[in-house]
Amino acid sequence: MEPENPSPPLFVPSSEIENRLSRFQDLLIQEGLDGVLLCQNVDLLYFSGTMQPGYLYLPAQEEPVFLARKNLERAMEESSLTNIVALSSSKEIPTLLTERDVSPPQTLGLEMDVLPAANYLQLKNIFKKTRLLNVSFLIRKCRMFKSPWEIENMTRAARMLHKMVLEVPRLLRPGMTEIELAGQLEAFLRREGHQGYIRTRGFNQEMFYGHILSGLEGGKSSYLDSPSGGAGVGPAFSQGAGKKLIRAHEAISIDFVGCHNGYLADQTRMFSLGEPPAPVKEAYLAVQEIQQSLRIKTLPGIPCDQVYFWALEEADRLGYLTHFMGLGPSLVRYIGHGLGLELDELPVIGQRFDWPLETGMVFALEPKMVLPEHGLVGIENTYQMTEQGIIPITTAPENFQIL
Amino acid sequence: MEPENPSPPLFVPSSEIENRLSRFQDLLIQEGLDGVLLCQNVDLLYFSGTMQPGYLYLPAQEEPVFLARKNLERAMEESSLTNIVALSSSKEIPTLLTERDVSPPQTLGLEMDVLPAANYLQLKNIFKKTRLLNVSFLIRKCRMFKSPWEIENMTRAARMLHKMVLEVPRLLRPGMTEIELAGQLEAFLRREGHQGYIRTRGFNQEMFYGHILSGLEGGKSSYLDSPSGGAGVGPAFSQGAGKKLIRAHEAISIDFVGCHNGYLADQTRMFSLGEPPAPVKEAYLAVQEIQQSLRIKTLPGIPCDQVYFWALEEADRLGYLTHFMGLGPSLVRYIGHGLGLELDELPVIGQRFDWPLETGMVFALEPKMVLPEHGLVGIENTYQMTEQGIIPITTAPENFQIL
Repeated sequence: MEPENPSPPLFVPSSEIENRLSRFQDLLIQEGLDGVLLCQNVDLLYFSGTMQPGYLYLPAQEEPVFLARKNLERAMEESSLTNIVALSSSKEIPTLLTERDVSPPQTLGLEMDVLPAANYLQLKNIFKKTRLLNVSFLIRKCRMFKSPWEIENMTRAARMLHKMVLEVPRLLRPGMTEIELAGQLEAFLRREGHQGYIRTRGFNQEMFYGHILSGLEGGKSSYLDSPSGGAGVGPAFSQGAGKKLIRAHEAISIDFVGCHNGYLADQTRMFSLGEPPAPVKEAYLAVQEIQQSLRIKTLPGIPCDQVYFWALEEADRLGYLTHFMGLGPSLVRYIGHGLGLELDELPVIGQRFDWPLETGMVFALEPKMVLPEHGLVGIENTYQMTEQGIIPITTAPENFQIL
Repeated sequence: MEPENPSPPLFVPSSEIENRLSRFQDLLIQEGLDGVLLCQNVDLLYFSGTMQPGYLYLPAQEEPVFLARKNLERAMEESSLTNIVALSSSKEIPTLLTERDVSPPQTLGLEMDVLPAANYLQLKNIFKKTRLLNVSFLIRKCRMFKSPWEIENMTRAARMLHKMVLEVPRLLRPGMTEIELAGQLEAFLRREGHQGYIRTRGFNQEMFYGHILSGLEGGKSSYLDSPSGGAGVGPAFSQGAGKKLIRAHEAISIDFVGCHNGYLADQTRMFSLGEPPAPVKEAYLAVQEIQQSLRIKTLPGIPCDQVYFWALEEADRLGYLTHFMGLGPSLVRYIGHGLGLELDELPVIGQRFDWPLETGMVFALEPKMVLPEHGLVGIENTYQMTEQGIIPITTAPENFQIL
């Protein structure tokens, strides 16, 4: 590991906010929208620097206005925006905007992928004459490109995971439960400054640090859209680490998410207590080979789905097509996903996503196999796309650690 | 602590599901609804026993049908319902229901408080001739009453918190950060079987185990609707434990949520390293006195808001009215909240909620003060309402622990 630079500032710099707003306003103009009204906490943080409750009205051509519903003072402390006003009820929004000389929008974008239907209907009632449109995709498109400041935060999140991997030999013992090991690694990450809470955008998609899976459990499909599943602690949280005892010679996958200043890094590494079964070692060589091949070929301009198809071809060539990226209900049609403030950002490196990759995108690639007899075997790293191709942000040693 | 009984079964018993469905169907008939279509994972778990992705169609008078979108097998393993069928796209819902002789609904209830607007509009397009209504409140009303099985799970969640409190003297040291202490207690709870992830229903309401706050940090208002706030680790997660060092003589509040089989228990206890300032000790006597008074007066039939007004009166009598339940933007107008599978369930023991309390309700009462010079001082327990009044589910010693 490189020595650490001093921590970047916790507040979102004003230059970041300006850059984001300007890129997003370009998208709004392209789409012919007059403005958007945002209220999901992560979108508020991204475009204003604060997630204090309220609304951010973001016109296509004028200055944005933050309407703070609860804590005006803390919103002003955290955000570099200059137009921050108090709001006591959503009904006041149009009046407050008019008072600030903001032209009433004819077309207004909303975060319809996360905004609850009841809130949508309330806003529809407040903006009776306005055409409401879903701008979720535009927001996600804007957030897909990461600035150097964002990548610096993700690098720090990755550094946590690197250090965590070095702790595993000290903590992993046969006979401990998966959640016991998870708790120890989680405590380590907390000491390193991890906020704990990991954000996902998709409806019903929940994540708690990631998945630690051992032996056959790793192959169990969960309610998540992910190739790894696991029993979890029961039907009430049926994913990830569970009460299963970790035994010698099992494949143990640690797929964990680091977090710094809200920014995530995603990484999977493999371990075993004593020699793992030969098919596990062979499968690990295969996922490393797939990863190596993708690291070379994944260049700017390549369509996302092409990367997925290359991975499939490699898996096929290596004799693992039927085990690749899940088995039965856990099978997913992607090999990677964007991440940033949320774990399920764009781009999707998968079947139905043919956009060309561009510099500034950050995504995880996670070739994984589910072996019916031995569970999950995989590797995952988070990468940034540069002009020269992808560079890993996650840096922990990639060897299969036999302890 | 009492010795433990064997763990209750992890799968939701069929008798539970039958009881819930029958109570909910009575509500649907009262409201004149033909059926509801549920898809939020917690509501699916509550009414079917599984949160595998899909829809639960629940008619007012016939058998429910679970439409499993991803993992039919795991849904059948976890749920005791008999009508479980595979679904490949939401568009198929009406056809699949017709094929199973389910009458098409004229009025259909949806979970509009959590269902994203985009999903709502999609369903509106699928059920073109159907009147769609928001049944969030009906669902929350049904879930407000807890069965003995649910209370047993919450009791186990509370037992975890009891054990955790006994660990604090071993772990708390001056100079450690709040998140470091949090990580240690979280690891302890994981070893006890805690799922980690804590569910909240409200939009933008996020919770990570609870709040550990020390000294002045405890008084800082956050983006949550709660009297305690805290700096958190920064603007990206501006609540709860942060990187602040815990110092001698500060008031330290540990407001943590236990979890067993998805069911929560909420508890706050106070600690200090060395003697706390006299005003902190006095405020703690006051919250204990308020709690004691509420424990005696909170009986079935009493309106929820009455309990809140009694608490206010007591706070006033004790000279703490201006510090009670937050200060400035963190001020909340309640003294307690229901909980179960989610932390923000009904009833709200607060100003705008005049329903009478009934046996079977479970809620936390949390008299808390924010002292401008010393931060948060409070106590919190989770109670079940019985014919004789409220009985605490949380059992950890209530003394202010000076370590």
